Amino acid sequence: MTDDYLSTTFAALADPTRRAILARLASGEASVTELAAPFEMSLPAVSKHLKVLERAGLISRGRDAQWRPCRLEPGPLKEADDWLETYRRVWEQRFDRLRDYLREVQKEEESDDSSKP
Amino acid sequence: MTDDYLSTTFAALADPTRRAILARLASGEASVTELAAPFEMSLPAVSKHLKVLERAGLISRGRDAQWRPCRLEPGPLKEADDWLETYRRVWEQRFDRLRDYLREVQKEEESDDSSKP
Repeated sequence: MTDDYLSTTFAALADPTRRAILARLASGEASVTELAAPFEMSLPAVSKHLKVLERAGLISRGRDAQWRPCRLEPGPLKEADDWLETYRRVWEQRFDRLRDYLREVQKEEESDDSSKP
Repeated sequence: MTDDYLSTTFAALADPTRRAILARLASGEASVTELAAPFEMSLPAVSKHLKVLERAGLISRGRDAQWRPCRLEPGPLKEADDWLETYRRVWEQRFDRLRDYLREVQKEEESDDSSKP
C-alpha cells in the first residue's frame, strides 16, 4: 500500500505547475483564482492540477462553497522524504569520496610545486 | 531547466518496480539479470524500466558489452531531496502544533479528573 501512495505522490510532483502550486500553498491557504493568477492558464486547467494534488492527499479543500480555499497537506511529502532518507547516505558517501580525491590531487600538486627548483 | 530535471526524476520514481531497482542498487552494482531476478518480469520489461531510470540520470550502465552493470547515481535524488527541504518546516510546524494540542487536551483531562470528588 505504501508503494501505491508513494507512486501517486511522485506522479503528482512530476509537474512544474503542480510544484509551483504547492510552493504557493506553503505560505498559506489560497483560492483557485489566487492560485491561477501567476500562471497563464484557464481556471479549468488549474482545477485539473488541483484534482491531481487532492487525489494524492497533497492538498485539501475548504468546505465553504463560495471560496473552498486550498491548503497544503504535508503528510505525503514527509513520506517521500522518508523514502529518500535511505539514499542520503549513498550521496554523502559519494561526495565524501570525491572530496577526499580532490584533496589528494591538491596535495600532489602542492608537493610537485614545492619540489620545483 | 531545474524544473524539467525534477519532473523527470519524480516521474521515474513514480513506480514501485523502479524504486525497488534503486533500493537494490543502493547496496552495489548489479547486472540486468540480477536486477530482474526478484521480479516476475521478463528481461525486456526490466530493461524498459532501466531505460527510464537511465534517462532520468538515476542510474548509469557500465561499458563492458558482456556485463554492462547498473550503478545508482544519487545526484537527482539529492535534487529531489533539496526540493522537499522547503516543505520540511511545514510538516514540522504542523506536527508541533498537533503535539501542543494533544498536550493541552491531556492537561484538561487531568484537571477534570482531579476536580472530581
